Amino acid sequence: MSFRIGIDLMGGDNAPAEVLLGIRRYLDLQADPVSLHLIGDAEMAKAWMQTNGLSMESLTLHHTTEVIGMQEHPTRALKEKPHSSIAKGFQLLAGGEIDAFLSAGNTGAMLVGTLFSIQALEGVIRPTMGTVMPKLNGTTGLILDVGLNADCKPEHLNQFALMGSVYARHMFDIDNPRVGLLNVGEEEGKGNILAQATYPLLKQNNSINFIGNIEGRDLMTDKADVIVCEGFTGNILLKMAESLYDMAQQTGIEHPFLNRFHFEHYGGTPVLGVRKPVIVGHGISGSLAFCNMIRLANQMLQTNILGKMADEIAKADKISPL
Amino acid sequence: MSFRIGIDLMGGDNAPAEVLLGIRRYLDLQADPVSLHLIGDAEMAKAWMQTNGLSMESLTLHHTTEVIGMQEHPTRALKEKPHSSIAKGFQLLAGGEIDAFLSAGNTGAMLVGTLFSIQALEGVIRPTMGTVMPKLNGTTGLILDVGLNADCKPEHLNQFALMGSVYARHMFDIDNPRVGLLNVGEEEGKGNILAQATYPLLKQNNSINFIGNIEGRDLMTDKADVIVCEGFTGNILLKMAESLYDMAQQTGIEHPFLNRFHFEHYGGTPVLGVRKPVIVGHGISGSLAFCNMIRLANQMLQTNILGKMADEIAKADKISPL
Repeated sequence: MSFRIGIDLMGGDNAPAEVLLGIRRYLDLQADPVSLHLIGDAEMAKAWMQTNGLSMESLTLHHTTEVIGMQEHPTRALKEKPHSSIAKGFQLLAGGEIDAFLSAGNTGAMLVGTLFSIQALEGVIRPTMGTVMPKLNGTTGLILDVGLNADCKPEHLNQFALMGSVYARHMFDIDNPRVGLLNVGEEEGKGNILAQATYPLLKQNNSINFIGNIEGRDLMTDKADVIVCEGFTGNILLKMAESLYDMAQQTGIEHPFLNRFHFEHYGGTPVLGVRKPVIVGHGISGSLAFCNMIRLANQMLQTNILGKMADEIAKADKISPL
Repeated sequence: MSFRIGIDLMGGDNAPAEVLLGIRRYLDLQADPVSLHLIGDAEMAKAWMQTNGLSMESLTLHHTTEVIGMQEHPTRALKEKPHSSIAKGFQLLAGGEIDAFLSAGNTGAMLVGTLFSIQALEGVIRPTMGTVMPKLNGTTGLILDVGLNADCKPEHLNQFALMGSVYARHMFDIDNPRVGLLNVGEEEGKGNILAQATYPLLKQNNSINFIGNIEGRDLMTDKADVIVCEGFTGNILLKMAESLYDMAQQTGIEHPFLNRFHFEHYGGTPVLGVRKPVIVGHGISGSLAFCNMIRLANQMLQTNILGKMADEIAKADKISPL
């Protein structure tokens, strides 16, 4: 059975054209077969597909009549616009009609929708979001949290470490992912109050391979596979890293390493620690990003990454309940 | 009168050779005349100078017999090694025998020495450290705090904004420096608890030109001249920015913009909000860094930047006492 992936046709600055181009791009890859569920204005979608020669085969349309704008208040918008593409996506996901949902629309609405419709995995204190960090040796690392939790407690970071390890193991095929704590110095005892209090928890955590502190200078080196931090610092880093690609564009630097910082290569950012895959895209996503969001959603479903996360969390809770 | 700048000969991984080479480099520039006070093993220094043809003219030697190692505990080391070059440097600075002190030695000892021997300016709640951030348009911005204060309160950031503005005005010649608050989103109300509570303080602060939030993607663009954050995030950013130069070296990318991230161009990091200039260098400083630390110390003395900071803080305190 192929997985059913829901796609918000109306989300992002370039919707629906780039979303539909991204879908075509995915189909052209002839990668794993998936069942794509397009959520949005059905008439508009059909017209585009006819004009642009995209076949309806393997596509299911879910018609919606409202759109949540990029600047709208998330909770209010979801409540007041039940016929919006984002609200509909979560209805389908919660109702089991689709297996994953992705959108480049209003980020806040996507997160509120995820937390309230899909809910956290059993035992997860705080769902999180991680981002890929390209490394100089060609591999990739994961940094989390990157913005879902601007203020954190040590036990949150400890659980991010576990969720990140499961993700790196199954999504990046890293056997025993090395976990680092983002910090201002190498030695134990360094850092702000949060980092100081988190270090011993990570050290005692038998479910992860903790290797100590990681400094800002080692984000691109191969010291750690998973780097944990609160979502404030993580979000600043995520956006700074993404801007390295823009920097290369502006300065005319051509180099494969800097190209790897282009967010479209990763598609979007998955929410971790919830029951079903939700992927949040950039507002400025183009077709490559949408294509890669579909691939990411499919990979998360194929690996059953969230199920594995649930298992690991249940196991860890038995060893040392928080 | 030329200013008297104290230089720790024993500090850093490449001491004393690179320190002395840096001094020669500075003298060769025939820049502003300064009176250089070399603090360290006098015999070793004299031997080096003889071998390498560096004249003693305009140099004063202060002999010391101890060295604080890079890994020693700062407070304990300063107490137990009163005849170390760092302890001696602070004795000379506190006693008015030198006007500024710089070292690439034990950072902790430099900071403890500064805070205890030199003290904060009247009205300064927390001295801070800022770093230069190269911008794509060729100008430079200042980010602070970058590590002196890992945990901060809103009133600290508010004062960093003022100190950073004075620094940018007089050291970078920027008329009315735009101050941004480092944050995860553009709108007021975004961020962690600290950023949310800091925003209104900055908005109400009439002594600065606050322009709102700055995201990670805008660190290299020309949105703000001064960016404030707590020292945890700032330190991670500082080290990540510095690593961009290393990245360029490793990948073979040759570009003037990336060269600007080489820390040696800035010499070292000045402590702001204290009574006399103290500059903390990287452990791995080479001669260029030492040369530029001397230039930076001299510029701070020439502009009387710390005196101007004291004036502005006194003025701000009269308008709206904290």
